[in-house]
Amino acid sequence: MIKPKAIILAGGIGKRMWPIKTNKLLLPFLGRPLIFHTLEAIKKAGIGDLVVVGRPAIISQLEKMVGFPDIQVVLQPKPTGLGEAVIKGLKGDFVLKGLKKAKKSQPILVINANDIFDPDLIKQIIRTGEEGKSEIIIPGLRVKEYFPGGYLKIKKGQLEKVVEKPLPGKEPTNLVKLVVDYFKNSDDLLKILPQILDRPDSYEMAINQLAKSGVKIRVVRYKGFWGSIKYPWDILRAMNLFFKHRFPKQKGQKPLVSGPVTVTGPVVFEEGVKILEGAKVRGPAYIGAGTIIGNQALVRESIIGKNCVVGYGTEIARSYVGDNCWFHTNYVGDSVLEENVSLGAGTVLANLRFDEQKVKSLAGKQKINTNLEKLGAIIGRNAKVGVNASVMPGVKIGTNSLVGPGAVLEKDLPENKFCYLKQSLKTRKNKKLFSLKNQLRQKARKKI
Amino acid sequence: MIKPKAIILAGGIGKRMWPIKTNKLLLPFLGRPLIFHTLEAIKKAGIGDLVVVGRPAIISQLEKMVGFPDIQVVLQPKPTGLGEAVIKGLKGDFVLKGLKKAKKSQPILVINANDIFDPDLIKQIIRTGEEGKSEIIIPGLRVKEYFPGGYLKIKKGQLEKVVEKPLPGKEPTNLVKLVVDYFKNSDDLLKILPQILDRPDSYEMAINQLAKSGVKIRVVRYKGFWGSIKYPWDILRAMNLFFKHRFPKQKGQKPLVSGPVTVTGPVVFEEGVKILEGAKVRGPAYIGAGTIIGNQALVRESIIGKNCVVGYGTEIARSYVGDNCWFHTNYVGDSVLEENVSLGAGTVLANLRFDEQKVKSLAGKQKINTNLEKLGAIIGRNAKVGVNASVMPGVKIGTNSLVGPGAVLEKDLPENKFCYLKQSLKTRKNKKLFSLKNQLRQKARKKI
Amino acid sequence: MIKPKAIILAGGIGKRMWPIKTNKLLLPFLGRPLIFHTLEAIKKAGIGDLVVVGRPAIISQLEKMVGFPDIQVVLQPKPTGLGEAVIKGLKGDFVLKGLKKAKKSQPILVINANDIFDPDLIKQIIRTGEEGKSEIIIPGLRVKEYFPGGYLKIKKGQLEKVVEKPLPGKEPTNLVKLVVDYFKNSDDLLKILPQILDRPDSYEMAINQLAKSGVKIRVVRYKGFWGSIKYPWDILRAMNLFFKHRFPKQKGQKPLVSGPVTVTGPVVFEEGVKILEGAKVRGPAYIGAGTIIGNQALVRESIIGKNCVVGYGTEIARSYVGDNCWFHTNYVGDSVLEENVSLGAGTVLANLRFDEQKVKSLAGKQKINTNLEKLGAIIGRNAKVGVNASVMPGVKIGTNSLVGPGAVLEKDLPENKFCYLKQSLKTRKNKKLFSLKNQLRQKARKKI
Repeated sequence: MIKPKAIILAGGIGKRMWPIKTNKLLLPFLGRPLIFHTLEAIKKAGIGDLVVVGRPAIISQLEKMVGFPDIQVVLQPKPTGLGEAVIKGLKGDFVLKGLKKAKKSQPILVINANDIFDPDLIKQIIRTGEEGKSEIIIPGLRVKEYFPGGYLKIKKGQLEKVVEKPLPGKEPTNLVKLVVDYFKNSDDLLKILPQILDRPDSYEMAINQLAKSGVKIRVVRYKGFWGSIKYPWDILRAMNLFFKHRFPKQKGQKPLVSGPVTVTGPVVFEEGVKILEGAKVRGPAYIGAGTIIGNQALVRESIIGKNCVVGYGTEIARSYVGDNCWFHTNYVGDSVLEENVSLGAGTVLANLRFDEQKVKSLAGKQKINTNLEKLGAIIGRNAKVGVNASVMPGVKIGTNSLVGPGAVLEKDLPENKFCYLKQSLKTRKNKKLFSLKNQLRQKARKKI
Repeated sequence: MIKPKAIILAGGIGKRMWPIKTNKLLLPFLGRPLIFHTLEAIKKAGIGDLVVVGRPAIISQLEKMVGFPDIQVVLQPKPTGLGEAVIKGLKGDFVLKGLKKAKKSQPILVINANDIFDPDLIKQIIRTGEEGKSEIIIPGLRVKEYFPGGYLKIKKGQLEKVVEKPLPGKEPTNLVKLVVDYFKNSDDLLKILPQILDRPDSYEMAINQLAKSGVKIRVVRYKGFWGSIKYPWDILRAMNLFFKHRFPKQKGQKPLVSGPVTVTGPVVFEEGVKILEGAKVRGPAYIGAGTIIGNQALVRESIIGKNCVVGYGTEIARSYVGDNCWFHTNYVGDSVLEENVSLGAGTVLANLRFDEQKVKSLAGKQKINTNLEKLGAIIGRNAKVGVNASVMPGVKIGTNSLVGPGAVLEKDLPENKFCYLKQSLKTRKNKKLFSLKNQLRQKARKKI
Repeated sequence: MIKPKAIILAGGIGKRMWPIKTNKLLLPFLGRPLIFHTLEAIKKAGIGDLVVVGRPAIISQLEKMVGFPDIQVVLQPKPTGLGEAVIKGLKGDFVLKGLKKAKKSQPILVINANDIFDPDLIKQIIRTGEEGKSEIIIPGLRVKEYFPGGYLKIKKGQLEKVVEKPLPGKEPTNLVKLVVDYFKNSDDLLKILPQILDRPDSYEMAINQLAKSGVKIRVVRYKGFWGSIKYPWDILRAMNLFFKHRFPKQKGQKPLVSGPVTVTGPVVFEEGVKILEGAKVRGPAYIGAGTIIGNQALVRESIIGKNCVVGYGTEIARSYVGDNCWFHTNYVGDSVLEENVSLGAGTVLANLRFDEQKVKSLAGKQKINTNLEKLGAIIGRNAKVGVNASVMPGVKIGTNSLVGPGAVLEKDLPENKFCYLKQSLKTRKNKKLFSLKNQLRQKARKKI
């Protein structure tokens, strides 16, 4: 049986991801970029012919990364939509020398790299394809509440139509379209797509046209987990999916411990991790290479990047922390820190509103309900926060920005800014001078 | 020998107790309301016939509480004084069906539920009564310094007169009147009291009248401990009396510990307490049911209510904490928290003045010297304090009020208020941008 | 062989040492005043005839201190320079009865008590002197970078001239003059010095004159460690020299530990130290008598004085802390605290600039580059800082001064001042009242 050629769509820009600059497909989860996990799942499903289509920035970084030397990549300088990406993936030789075109009789599997789902879904789609009964096979994600996506309208067990973002209550089914699409061959797509490439929804249009023209499109119901990173706080949701569903069974390296420490639950330690006396790591957690967990620190349900220092007396809970971050007597709850972020001693990233309502946060000028009761700060790379500062729930700090000591940051801080507190300090004579002797006497009385 | 009928006076309103709303007699100590400890002491002295006289609010709550099903209760809707309460206790049948009147020959024992004293005093008074030599027996609390109460003037071993609040230095003795009073029979009281019921000091007047008329009133000198809750900080004094004198011998339940923890001194753990790694509880201490003592936390010489979370890195010292309170990296010293109070990470309840003088606090509009060198905050139920806030010694926060992050609260906050900090934050361009590379190089040099 | 008489010059005033008031020669290192270590080194080199020359204040304190009963002291009320001090040391009998003059044939060794150096240098100088080949022997400290001191110009292995503070790049050699000077006899000095005593550099002038007149002055090259306290932050440098080069081999007393604690590296504990559960001391460190290291505290690479309380949750790193200091949930990094200093809970002494540049600090009105990347605060005796305050790197607080809660102190605070924060707190109605029931339901959902 000929295996399909996988076309991995890696075109997303993530314009709603500010202040996170790292392309979301390259954000490391459990030590490897998000897209690697997808590529690995595809390979494990037995597919050896992979082509990734994306913007030059991500493609160039992907090429630098090791581990998948046999993956073809195609540039998509100004993406217009999935349809264009699929065409580029299929006709990659226009762009890139040495790229293997899909063979005449070879099926294709179109996968959106933005989605996080159960690797078994790929296997299931391929298996269904190999049964040979359907021209096209697409998965439908069963949702429990309204989600603003494309819904599958089904007639006699076949797809009738993809309905894009119906109003709540108007959904034709509870099945949302995921892009793990199997095509027995690519001829029809190659015929239809080029005519409508300027349309952002060209890919869904092509599927709808095929369905209308009588092509049998089978829908595979998918009840497993799913996630997608659209806003920066979705990184925390993605992290939890990795913790729950894709946590590796191997324990990783053995950390160097300097005394009594506690490690509970599943934790992956990379090489060279040090844990100092009194510290605790409560899994699920991932601790990157060379990171130090200081005395009395507590890390729980979090990803910590490489070469971080989680200093004395710091708690990091349910947070995503990039490489080279430094902490010292901090509370970091439900927060996302990109990389090279430092927090001064005593600084707190607050994660719960007084009214315990869902946290709201800006994306551009739009206030978004994150639907999260607990959400801390989102901090871009190279940002630093001074000592004893407080950052309010859902507040974002841009790349290279500084927050001064003692500040209470209640709204987003753009990039390359220094936000500092202008305190009104008064000085007067200290009228209550005590002699040292007097004070010592007082202390002696009070001594514990 | 016929046992006396006990009339327990539970009429106090506690108007100086703001922001604490719980009636002081219902404040839990070691898991049970203050008044229960008194009732228990009376029962242990062999008295089975008890009547509690108090306002409807406390009486209705008392009836809801379990454990003393055989106690009679009498409503005193608008208390005028102890005298009225005693009459109501004796003639309870005017008010309440099924209440047993004192038998003709039955002695009575009048006890003020506000007082905290050695249960043995009750036994001693009864025993003296059973000797049959005196008509009336009253205790005199030996005080070492002036206290604004009623002093006992004594002549030939018998009470001559109760002198109400003499000026300091004018005390007839060093004996202050406590209300644990034994009357061989109630006839005389029933004759005198109804004529003077409108007087707030009718009870003391009646005793003085009896003394004047030649009735033998024996004074039993009492040298044991005594306390009474008048101001909210007196709750801490009461707590210490319970710790010192009324701490149970049983250890309570065994807490669930998740690793190495330390428990020293006498500690009572109720059911379902969890103690996480690195935490320490130093007795005397009482930890209510379902409470979690988080990692690295330190609780010492405190009462913690039910279902509290003493989160990571919190110290609670010499404090009274009600049910459902939440802490996270806090210092709580010498403070009283009613129930359902939350403190944000980094928040400190300061407990010592710079000048180490006694802390003063308002009761109504009056500034009271608490006579305490260390006193933290007094916080009413449902109040919340944001992250990195500071509350100054002796400051009180009303029910349902909020204190914003970073605030330094220096005076009382009334109920249902939101007190927030209006910081002057300035933002300018960050001129000192460093490349990531540069910073990493710097860090490598400094790495511990 | 007749041993030299040692003249120890203890004249320095330390006018750049503000806010530290303790004379630098009397600052304790490893439990004993700086000058004691020098005196001990001299005695260990076999010298029994010592005279210390200094201002009355230091001399009177020195006489009070025990341990060196056989040391002669000479007052130098208004020091003009080393030359005057040497003369006073030699002709001490003008001033002090019973002082032994140097014997006619007795060599002398002039030592500056301000310098911290390897005790072996003294032995080496004496040994070279005893070889008898040179009239005068002086050490030259080999420096690796420019230092504003006196440089040794050398001709044919003999000193030609001491060049005072040449411009950088104009140094005649890389050898800086230290004052550990051996004179075969004192006759020449006694002849030259009195004529030029009003000159501050009379001592160097005398040596230059002797060199010019043909006296053989041998230079001993010294490659060991050296330090000198000029600014208060130099105390940290001196501490490190003691840690590296003069740390005693004996471990001192055994501290009283109340549970599992960690002690690593070389640590000297004096008598009566208590370490509570979960605390860690990482050497090199010196912990003074009677000091308590509280639960979860971390002390590393620091000197802590007598009777300090390093309370719960405090980290003290690379700092010099005097006697009777109190801490509670603090971060103290790279700081100098004189004695009887208290920090409120949550207070942080910041030690690193945002730009990670060298910290600058004022000495008088002059801004000095401390050449230290990490420097915290310098705090004079009896100063107190309130809760949740922040003191910026290199900031100094004068004796008897107070810093209020929540303040961010960015510049030096003079003595006897109270610097407090004038916050703008607003109060409005709390519109978001929740019933207790409602809140409890919410909490139940979130419970960890």
